[in-house]
Amino acid sequence: MKIVECVPNFSEGRDQAKIKRIINVFENHKEIKLVNYEADGDYNRTVVTLIGDPDKMIDALMDLTNICLKEIDLNKHTGEHARMGAIDVIPFIPISDIKMKECVKYSEILAEKIADKYDIPCFLYAEAARKDDRVNLPNIRKGEFEGMKEKIKDPNWKPDFGPSKRHDTFGSIAIGARDFLIAYNIDVATDDEKITNRFAKAIRQSSGGYQYVQAGPVYLENRGHTQVTMNILNYKKNPIYRIFETVKMEAKRYGFDIPSAEIVGLVPKDALIRSLRYYYGVNNLEFDKDMSIDKVVDGCKKYLKFRDFDAKKIIDYFL
Amino acid sequence: MKIVECVPNFSEGRDQAKIKRIINVFENHKEIKLVNYEADGDYNRTVVTLIGDPDKMIDALMDLTNICLKEIDLNKHTGEHARMGAIDVIPFIPISDIKMKECVKYSEILAEKIADKYDIPCFLYAEAARKDDRVNLPNIRKGEFEGMKEKIKDPNWKPDFGPSKRHDTFGSIAIGARDFLIAYNIDVATDDEKITNRFAKAIRQSSGGYQYVQAGPVYLENRGHTQVTMNILNYKKNPIYRIFETVKMEAKRYGFDIPSAEIVGLVPKDALIRSLRYYYGVNNLEFDKDMSIDKVVDGCKKYLKFRDFDAKKIIDYFL
Repeated sequence: MKIVECVPNFSEGRDQAKIKRIINVFENHKEIKLVNYEADGDYNRTVVTLIGDPDKMIDALMDLTNICLKEIDLNKHTGEHARMGAIDVIPFIPISDIKMKECVKYSEILAEKIADKYDIPCFLYAEAARKDDRVNLPNIRKGEFEGMKEKIKDPNWKPDFGPSKRHDTFGSIAIGARDFLIAYNIDVATDDEKITNRFAKAIRQSSGGYQYVQAGPVYLENRGHTQVTMNILNYKKNPIYRIFETVKMEAKRYGFDIPSAEIVGLVPKDALIRSLRYYYGVNNLEFDKDMSIDKVVDGCKKYLKFRDFDAKKIIDYFL
Repeated sequence: MKIVECVPNFSEGRDQAKIKRIINVFENHKEIKLVNYEADGDYNRTVVTLIGDPDKMIDALMDLTNICLKEIDLNKHTGEHARMGAIDVIPFIPISDIKMKECVKYSEILAEKIADKYDIPCFLYAEAARKDDRVNLPNIRKGEFEGMKEKIKDPNWKPDFGPSKRHDTFGSIAIGARDFLIAYNIDVATDDEKITNRFAKAIRQSSGGYQYVQAGPVYLENRGHTQVTMNILNYKKNPIYRIFETVKMEAKRYGFDIPSAEIVGLVPKDALIRSLRYYYGVNNLEFDKDMSIDKVVDGCKKYLKFRDFDAKKIIDYFL
């Protein structure tokens, strides 16, 4: 069974009634699992996490486009987050039994459908990008809704689907495909952000570390210690255990404890299985890659020191 | 005292008398230390390692150019290694009290002098490159001595110094500046190259690992085990200890021992000091960054498990 995750971001994060009306659209798409949605007032933006069959996902996203077109007028929109559309961006993320290539295909199908039906210009981004300068979303979005009015007339910014004309109220959408991204933080038993920054530098790509890791230090006011806060852009090439063990190795020289770590948002079971396999190997235990989700949760708590972690953090729980 | 390393490669590796006559040129440049030279018959090429004051280095390299011009005719040269000049390439490498920028400057000075005095076309490469397609030496050298006859007439391949005409017998030279590169191998107590390759993949840039590490597996026929064989292109960003500890961490899952490691060629004391500092930290020992070379050697054997290692492997020994 093919499963994708889609994370549409729409440009309303304050008007709860309006958000509710928009989200209600998924009531008619029970085959698609609405994992959660997070509305941010400062950003004035809502991030929706959906998982399900890609064909049914497209139907649901067409309805989402329709309701956003009715509910949102970007001429009246303000907020801290950069945006160019009423739906600003829709990534397709391969979860189960589906390749990146197919996700690219689905993003193209959706872009074509939205362009045809609603006359909204669509840009393909990330893995679906057809031009180098469209790989990075911020590059496409530069100038935002307001600037796009002129930008889109530049032949270099002709949309991949739809008219070379910004939709008057909706704007334009970036649609694409990308790998699952894991938001992962490692707690460090020090309040010295400078030292925690050294751990971040040891592992992040931009300082010479692992290729698919973005990392920085952060001080947690409420908890009274620092964290290495990370995005793992490719958990297959940079598995969680390797990052965790490398930070532990670095922390050793200062005698700091690594008491715990956390996952923000969702994580695929596969990413955890890959890391548990390492610890089972180290401890010479028999490994079952099809172990239950409960057993995965236990293993993650034991070996990866996950705190605030349960089955609902694992995508496969919803499948 | 400014110290650079230069590693000129000249295109003769078979005729021992001729090689001797060429190397003898350094007899007149006693201020420059001839660390060693390695002639390879298959390559038909000799690699010379020199360290010393950069101004005096330039005088020595001018003499080297003069003798190679007299002794080597590339029209008669064959060998397995690609080459475009009687001296094929000269990198300047910062060792002590000198910045990369200055090494770039010295490479420019040398290129201009050689071009002016001998009418030999010179291309600036690596950190000294003035065009993107001249950063990588193989890109400049493509077509080799023979192909350069036409290639050099292309305005895109106009040399940085000297005539747009290949020297009839000498060819052309690539001169530039680059960081010190450490050739480092970690022994793995298995003959299974496949598994050792997994360790290489965990740490090398091309598979998602550390940014400045090139690595692959190799089976050592004579020793009967495998190695992760590496180039460390930036030992400040990817210190030896971190690579060593990461490979140890990966090997743990298979229960493999990491009995030893080795440095091929030379290594700066600074690179070893940076790694010893880690182990001193882990073991809570007082650290003296100005420790003697002998103490560095002892530490490397103890913590980094270097085999076949002595003071003569450390550049600073020669300073």
